[in-house]
Amino acid sequence: MQALAVVDGQLIFVPNHPEAEPGDGQVRVRPIQAGICETDLQLVQGYMGFSGVLGHEFVGIAESGSMAGERVVGEINCICEKCEFCARGLGNHCPNRTVIGILNHHGAFAESLIVPERNLHRVPDNVSNDMATLVEPVAAALQILEQVEVVPNPRVIVLGDGRLGNLCAQVLKAAGGDVRVVGKHRAKLARLAALGIPTELVENAPRTRTADVVVECTGSATGLETALSLVRPRGTVVMKTTVAGAHQLSLAPLVIDEITLVGSRCGPFAKAIAAISDGVFQLDDFVGGRFRLDQYQQAFEHARGPNALKVVFEIQPG
Amino acid sequence: MQALAVVDGQLIFVPNHPEAEPGDGQVRVRPIQAGICETDLQLVQGYMGFSGVLGHEFVGIAESGSMAGERVVGEINCICEKCEFCARGLGNHCPNRTVIGILNHHGAFAESLIVPERNLHRVPDNVSNDMATLVEPVAAALQILEQVEVVPNPRVIVLGDGRLGNLCAQVLKAAGGDVRVVGKHRAKLARLAALGIPTELVENAPRTRTADVVVECTGSATGLETALSLVRPRGTVVMKTTVAGAHQLSLAPLVIDEITLVGSRCGPFAKAIAAISDGVFQLDDFVGGRFRLDQYQQAFEHARGPNALKVVFEIQPG
Repeated sequence: MQALAVVDGQLIFVPNHPEAEPGDGQVRVRPIQAGICETDLQLVQGYMGFSGVLGHEFVGIAESGSMAGERVVGEINCICEKCEFCARGLGNHCPNRTVIGILNHHGAFAESLIVPERNLHRVPDNVSNDMATLVEPVAAALQILEQVEVVPNPRVIVLGDGRLGNLCAQVLKAAGGDVRVVGKHRAKLARLAALGIPTELVENAPRTRTADVVVECTGSATGLETALSLVRPRGTVVMKTTVAGAHQLSLAPLVIDEITLVGSRCGPFAKAIAAISDGVFQLDDFVGGRFRLDQYQQAFEHARGPNALKVVFEIQPG
Repeated sequence: MQALAVVDGQLIFVPNHPEAEPGDGQVRVRPIQAGICETDLQLVQGYMGFSGVLGHEFVGIAESGSMAGERVVGEINCICEKCEFCARGLGNHCPNRTVIGILNHHGAFAESLIVPERNLHRVPDNVSNDMATLVEPVAAALQILEQVEVVPNPRVIVLGDGRLGNLCAQVLKAAGGDVRVVGKHRAKLARLAALGIPTELVENAPRTRTADVVVECTGSATGLETALSLVRPRGTVVMKTTVAGAHQLSLAPLVIDEITLVGSRCGPFAKAIAAISDGVFQLDDFVGGRFRLDQYQQAFEHARGPNALKVVFEIQPG
């Protein structure tokens, strides 16, 4: 099969990658399309020391199991079901887990991948392939609501106007937040403004420290410092950015102002699918580039560019 | 009056410091004794750019107001009572506040200081001067319970065996935690072991990441990294350390493991006084050094040493 893999720290196109066989409780899924995530850009730069087939945002056709022949999306954490975390319903933190396209598990930038059947969710007919590709990041945005108890009508700043920032802003607005997006890219900010979400260029954002919640989605090591300059005392900073390497940071303000910093990662797929199917979010035109797997260089270049939202690989017909 | 002040970044003894006059709603307090806090050690090293009379843990005699002639302790945040934070009961975060001995307000290492009457609390007769000097740090330890909702019987690691670490360990044990203290100083750990609290040298502590809550009280810039190596996924790190300068830190684990990091500062005086009066904590022998103000060099040297718990200045008879 065709696949896009990280080998020895380099992203390469493999025209004849071996296909794995599903084991017990596993299903082979044939991806229709798969999205490039900020994390993929980081993985290619060495984050997690990943090696293997990339890709963790996908919609495909299940080949076997109870959903055989149906369109599915898949949760990315493949868990042991035996440890203390799995027993407590915190499987996303199972220490024995593999993570599709991120940790010891081949991903979806390929003509097939193996997914535990328990990870799969059917895609409703009214959810397009583009929207289905966004289930994973929408779930990641919804995770904020699972973790952070916010005051009524919270003043929210989403820091970062990219893919995840856009979705987080929509999720928090739908949850009743008074949301503002602070970013660097005029075109991306304009998309948000068109959704009725106030925006601001980061250099113009007043450091008045009035936000109840700041969601840090910049994908940059310096994002947290900016977030701390915007959040009010006793406020909450939600960290979505994962970057390789160490940050230089002064943490005294966090203690003095009793800030709560919450790391936030993967979220609830079922809620994401239901919300997308119910039209809660504006996801039209979210996909801003379509490529074949062998066009990976252009695809990644586009995903890294200042104006693209989601870039997808079109892999095979649905 | 005699006073111990930071002037141009140097700690000096001032034999004839002018006495300030109390304004509206303010009371002059004549300190009986005052404790040296880790924050004082930081302030002397340039933290907050403080200049003025040091000292914020004190017991003294009120000279006027409704508590005239009585033994009092004082909350350290002097607030405006007008801003949004004060209106919301978050006066400790009033942006217009001064902080006794820390920010634009002369402190208690002196023969008198000025305190807003609203900040004062009477000291019950069964609370000794030594215990009263500990009200401020006990309140700071109790603040953890105001901020962190812990699972039943949480597995708690207190990182740091100093003054605040000891008090935090006692507070969390009293609250039902399964508490372990990880520290660097055998003598201080032995004191904790004598209270029935298991202890471990930091170099022997297994990095198994099983603690539900880690309280970081090391006073060192590297404490947070160690705390992150001990806390479980979805666990909480409470930051008590304030140090000047920037830390080098990798934050990806915080996001991947969805850690919550909570900055924690000053706490509830009334609860601290009640708990001390009720004998909840073992505070005997907590004071490990007594000095006059003009012995400040020895006092600070002792407070910085590896074995001292609380070092106090005995200022005038109670």
